Amino acid sequence: MRRITVVENILKANDAIARANRDRLDKHGVVAMNWLSSPGTGKTTLLEKTLPALEQRAVRPAVIEGDIQTTRDAERIDALGVPVVQITTGGACHLNASMVKQALDELALDELDLVIIENVGNLVCPADISLGEHLTAVLLSVTEGHDKPLKYPLAFRVAHAMAITKTDLIPYTDFELGEARKFALQINPELRIVETSCYKEVGIEEWADWIVESSQFKTEGS
Amino acid sequence: MRRITVVENILKANDAIARANRDRLDKHGVVAMNWLSSPGTGKTTLLEKTLPALEQRAVRPAVIEGDIQTTRDAERIDALGVPVVQITTGGACHLNASMVKQALDELALDELDLVIIENVGNLVCPADISLGEHLTAVLLSVTEGHDKPLKYPLAFRVAHAMAITKTDLIPYTDFELGEARKFALQINPELRIVETSCYKEVGIEEWADWIVESSQFKTEGS
Repeated sequence: MRRITVVENILKANDAIARANRDRLDKHGVVAMNWLSSPGTGKTTLLEKTLPALEQRAVRPAVIEGDIQTTRDAERIDALGVPVVQITTGGACHLNASMVKQALDELALDELDLVIIENVGNLVCPADISLGEHLTAVLLSVTEGHDKPLKYPLAFRVAHAMAITKTDLIPYTDFELGEARKFALQINPELRIVETSCYKEVGIEEWADWIVESSQFKTEGS
Repeated sequence: MRRITVVENILKANDAIARANRDRLDKHGVVAMNWLSSPGTGKTTLLEKTLPALEQRAVRPAVIEGDIQTTRDAERIDALGVPVVQITTGGACHLNASMVKQALDELALDELDLVIIENVGNLVCPADISLGEHLTAVLLSVTEGHDKPLKYPLAFRVAHAMAITKTDLIPYTDFELGEARKFALQINPELRIVETSCYKEVGIEEWADWIVESSQFKTEGS
């Protein structure tokens, strides 16, 4: 009983900071988007392709990189000339609202339209922790298998969109796009699904279009 | 401060149950092995290939399947005629010693030599939680990228062996075996590394040999 109370208090404290993050973003007209996936699904690679496509659409993006160790991902984003803040969690399995608050301190919010938060690679824990984001995206690579929405449902339930990544590898796997779509929509009938291959440059425009449309909608609605 | 105390108490309670699991396994001469990886790395597929190879080596295996949702993995193992117990965690991001204790209750330990525990697909949280296992294996698929040992070091640090899976896909990725080996050994110089492809039937015999050798060693040493 005591444990539950304490955990609840921690979550309540996180949610209060998340709401403050959200208010602060809204005040500056900035939309925040939380990207979730397993390790190695290709979050950073899809970011590398998406950021230039967003800039072509007159969106001014920044990135918050969450990693347990290393600054490898942030260096890849920095190489594109996009503002990036690295959060190294040290061992924690997800970002929390307090970490994102500190990262927002480092960004010139008045010069931005969109902050993409690349969470720690973990399809389980980050799905439960609010950061103050307006939008959540989940990424699923074809090599992980089409059954993952059923096996890790929460991430797919909380997401607004799912990018299926590495579709160029489908011929070499037993991944079935139809099954992945069916299972994902079974968990979340509202989920927008975009098929992408960064290697073949497929789906990047559609993905960037979705981000722009959803961000405008959210900004207008907030 | 209070939070830390409570978390420590929970971990202490887990470790006490883990020790009891270990004593119970030792009493029956059964070795337990904990398999860790991201979702979709191919734990169940490698199990499907490894179990017959173990039986050819006169090892009597059983499997404990940890999943957040669904019994899909357990059904795949059951189809092989190997004793299997499914633990559905409901939402928890890792197995704990108490869950494994309940699963051991369901197994005829006197008729077994080895229990392989397939943990929840999560490269972060399960690495920290003792189940009473003698051996830990981490799996890394080539599609996840060769930098993962650096980015998620704990799982590679606690492991005795790493199976690199899906090596048949190397030609279609930028995965570099040499880099993966180098990074993994940087984190854990004692790590035994086996390259596998379940699709091409590569490395299964070596992997089964490692399990048998290590299990015998552990049993004799315990």
